[in-house]
Amino acid sequence: MKKKKYTVRIRVWVDEESGPFLGIGRIILLEKIKETGSITNAAKSIKMSYRQAWQLVEDMNKRANTPLVEKILGGKHGSGAVLTKAGEVTIKEFYKLENKIQSYIQKESGKIKF
Amino acid sequence: MKKKKYTVRIRVWVDEESGPFLGIGRIILLEKIKETGSITNAAKSIKMSYRQAWQLVEDMNKRANTPLVEKILGGKHGSGAVLTKAGEVTIKEFYKLENKIQSYIQKESGKIKF
Repeated sequence: MKKKKYTVRIRVWVDEESGPFLGIGRIILLEKIKETGSITNAAKSIKMSYRQAWQLVEDMNKRANTPLVEKILGGKHGSGAVLTKAGEVTIKEFYKLENKIQSYIQKESGKIKF
Repeated sequence: MKKKKYTVRIRVWVDEESGPFLGIGRIILLEKIKETGSITNAAKSIKMSYRQAWQLVEDMNKRANTPLVEKILGGKHGSGAVLTKAGEVTIKEFYKLENKIQSYIQKESGKIKF
């Protein structure tokens, strides 16, 4: 009988001592803020309420060593938000971590004995 | 300013070509079947419907190389279910995989630059 083929899938979260810091959902929110220039539009694009998106941004800013999102008040096109340098780095580091774990799993998954 | 401390958390799933095979929820279901000797009681203990537990067992049995759960009909105490040798091995291998990934992360997480 042909042996079945298995693949391993993971999900990664990063916690700070006071609670959750990052997960793929929060990373996508950061990316959307970068793309759209505002929390309101970022929230809309992922069908999240503004209130929840705002809360997640507050959470991340509080748990980061340096805030990831900066709110801009009264700009030319009304208020908006941009990623800080730390915000940009955080997105890259999260994916780097995820990829490293995936590569490790790739290397190990030949040894699975199901 | 004191640097914040981060920890990495993961969740692991194993998929077969036709769909999901294992995750921590399914592993707990297998453990409960082993503990209680029946799918009905296992389902109750994790507040799952019998129908869903039965479906998950069917799924796992179909996607495993050898069935993980064997149904016993008309035993002394009515019908029940036991783990096969493959079922026992599968639980161990799943935790082994999870632990290996966790150890790797432990080793790597000093390098996170958030």
